[in-house]
Amino acid sequence: MKKKPDVYAVIMAGGGGTRFWPWSRETRPKQVLPILSPRAMIRETVDRIQPLVPPERTLIVTSRSQARQLHREVPRIPPENLLLEPVGKNTAPCLGLAAVHVQRTDPDAVLIVLPADHYIGAPDQFLHTLQRAAEFASREEYLITLGITPTGPETGYGYIQKGPVLGRVGQTEVFRAKAFREKPTLQKAKAYLRRGDYLWNSGMFIWRVGVFLEALEKCLPRLHRDMQELKASLGKRRERKVLEKVYSRCSSISVDYGVMEKAPNVALIEARFGWSDVGSWSVLGNICPQDPQGNVRIQRGGKGRIVTIDSSGCVIRSEKNLIAVLGLKDIVVAEAGDAILVCPRDRSQDVRYILQELKERGWKDYL
Amino acid sequence: MKKKPDVYAVIMAGGGGTRFWPWSRETRPKQVLPILSPRAMIRETVDRIQPLVPPERTLIVTSRSQARQLHREVPRIPPENLLLEPVGKNTAPCLGLAAVHVQRTDPDAVLIVLPADHYIGAPDQFLHTLQRAAEFASREEYLITLGITPTGPETGYGYIQKGPVLGRVGQTEVFRAKAFREKPTLQKAKAYLRRGDYLWNSGMFIWRVGVFLEALEKCLPRLHRDMQELKASLGKRRERKVLEKVYSRCSSISVDYGVMEKAPNVALIEARFGWSDVGSWSVLGNICPQDPQGNVRIQRGGKGRIVTIDSSGCVIRSEKNLIAVLGLKDIVVAEAGDAILVCPRDRSQDVRYILQELKERGWKDYL
Repeated sequence: MKKKPDVYAVIMAGGGGTRFWPWSRETRPKQVLPILSPRAMIRETVDRIQPLVPPERTLIVTSRSQARQLHREVPRIPPENLLLEPVGKNTAPCLGLAAVHVQRTDPDAVLIVLPADHYIGAPDQFLHTLQRAAEFASREEYLITLGITPTGPETGYGYIQKGPVLGRVGQTEVFRAKAFREKPTLQKAKAYLRRGDYLWNSGMFIWRVGVFLEALEKCLPRLHRDMQELKASLGKRRERKVLEKVYSRCSSISVDYGVMEKAPNVALIEARFGWSDVGSWSVLGNICPQDPQGNVRIQRGGKGRIVTIDSSGCVIRSEKNLIAVLGLKDIVVAEAGDAILVCPRDRSQDVRYILQELKERGWKDYL
Repeated sequence: MKKKPDVYAVIMAGGGGTRFWPWSRETRPKQVLPILSPRAMIRETVDRIQPLVPPERTLIVTSRSQARQLHREVPRIPPENLLLEPVGKNTAPCLGLAAVHVQRTDPDAVLIVLPADHYIGAPDQFLHTLQRAAEFASREEYLITLGITPTGPETGYGYIQKGPVLGRVGQTEVFRAKAFREKPTLQKAKAYLRRGDYLWNSGMFIWRVGVFLEALEKCLPRLHRDMQELKASLGKRRERKVLEKVYSRCSSISVDYGVMEKAPNVALIEARFGWSDVGSWSVLGNICPQDPQGNVRIQRGGKGRIVTIDSSGCVIRSEKNLIAVLGLKDIVVAEAGDAILVCPRDRSQDVRYILQELKERGWKDYL
C-alpha cells in the first residue's frame, strides 16, 4: 500500500502592509502586528494550522528584511523553514521557490498555501475543509483553490466561477473552477451575487508539489526553468547567488494570473468558515468585537485609552495616547504613537494616497 | 480746566478654558495658549491695548493658581497689577475688586474691561472704538458696553437691543441699551437678525470707576458692601484675610445679569471690528487663515505635521505627531501630545461631555 503523502503548510508572508498605516510601516508589516488578537497575525496563522501541520513541515516565504522579525513571532518554526526571497516578485515565484524546496526532500508532498494575514472565523471548519482538500489533492491531479461563499457584493476581492462537480471527499463537493475574475465593479459584484455560482478568491491553495510544478512548466515555462536551476543549487555553495540571479530576472506575477487562470486542471472547494483578507481598517469594523454602539476599539498594551461619546460604527485604535471621539459615525481613528490617521471607513482603502504624499514630502520617518 | 481722567485696562483672565480640550487643561487655561498666533492670547490682548493703556495701568484679574503662568506671558505688567481672586465668582465680584483697587489711587479713572481671550479682527478700529467709548465714559454718567454687529444668527452669544441715540463722540453714536437677552434659540436669533436692532454682547465694558461702584451699590448692595470692606483693608495686614472672607461669602454672579440688566444708565456703542469670543474649536475655522480647501491648520512649534487629502472645512491641530486626514469634511482633529479629540465641527462645543467622562473614569492626567 502506498504511503499517505505528508502535508506541508506554505505561509506567504512577504507583504509590506501599507494598508494598516500608521500601525503598519515599511519596517513593521501587517503580518507581525497583533491586529485581530494580542498575537501577531503570522503567529495566529501558524497556530491555526498546527493541528494539521507540525512546525517542522511549516514553511514561511518572506523577504530577508522581515526574517528576524518573523522568527521572533514564531520561534517554534525551524529557522531553515524560513525561505527568504531577495526581493518580492508576487506569488508565482514565491510558490515556485517553496515547491522546489519541498520537492527536494519530499516529492509526493501536499502543500497547503496560506496567506499570513487573513481572518478565519471558524478555525475548526477551516481545518476540516483543508483536510478534505488535501485528501483530494493527494489522489487527483488537480490544483485546488478555496472559494469563499460571498456574504455581499464585495468589490475588493477577485471572484471564481464554479463549474460542474468533479468529485467528492466525504460530504465535500469539489467543483471545476470555470473562470477567474478580477476585482469587479459594484454592478458586476451584484450580478455575481445574484447568479449564485461565484465565490470569493481566497488566495488559499492546496496541491501536490509535482502537480503544481507541472502546471508551472506549462503555464510559465521560463519561471519553471529558473526554479529548476534553483533546485539544482539548493544546499550548494552557489545557492544564494543563483537565488539572487533568478529573482532579479524573473517577472513579478501572481499565481492566480500566471497559473490558475490558465491551467486546465483547477478545482474549487467552497468554504464557509468566515473569512476576510483584512484588507483595510474598515474591515475590522465587520470582524472584531464591537461595543454596544457598534464601535471597534483596538488597544493592545496598557497605555492606549479610548473615550467615545455619541459615536457609532467607528474603528478606533489607541497605542500611547487618549483618543476621544464625539459625534462620529463610521470613522477610522488610528493612532500609532507618532502618527494618527482619521478618515471615513469607506475611504480607508485610500490610505496609500497618504503614503504617496509622505514620500513626496520626504517624511520618511512615517513610512 | 479739569484734568482728563486716566484710562485703565482691566483684563479678566480667570477662565479655565475647557472648551479647547485637549489643548487647554486645568493647568493650562485658554488664555495662556497661542491659539490665534504664536503668542499667548493674554499677551495678544495686552499688546493690543498698549497704544491706549500703558502696562502700569493694565490690571489682570485672575486666580492664584494662574498668576505665575500669566506673569510669564506678560512680564511687562507689574506683578502688583495682577489681582488674584482666591476663587472665581464670575464677573461681578471680579470687576468690583478691580474697581476698588483703582479707586484707591485714582478715583476718577476710566476702566476698559476686556476678556483675556477674544479675537479682534481689526485692532486699529478696536482701539478707535475704545477711545471714543472712554471719552464718553469720562464725561457722562453711563456704563458703556460694546455691542458687535451680528454677522449671522449666532446662538452662542447673548444679545443687546439698541435703544434711542443718547449722544455722539465724534462720528460715533452712543445708544441707550434697551434690553439684554440670554443666548437665544436659533429661531429667536434669526428674528433678532431680521429686526436689525440687536447686537452681540461682547463682554467688553467701559466706565468710570465711580459710576460702576454706584451702580453696584444700587444693583448688588451686598457685594458693594463687601467691596467697601475690602477696599478699607487694601495695603493693610488684614487684606488677604478680608479678601478670602469676602470671596467665600459673595455670590457667583455675572456683571451682565447682576448690574447691566438692572442699571438704568447703560449705554451701547456698536462695534464692527471683527470679533469672536473664540468659544470652540469650530470657531477657528471661521477666523484663522485657511488652506485652499478651507482647512485650518494649527501647528505651533516644530514637531507637529499635518497631511490632508480630499478634506475640506476641517480644523486640525498638531503638536507632536503627524496627523493625516483623508476624505473628511468639517471635522475637528486636535492633538495635544497625550490626547487627541476628533469630532464634527458642529459638536465641538460638547467637548465638556468628554471631560465629564474622563472625571468619572478617574483619568485625571488628561483634565
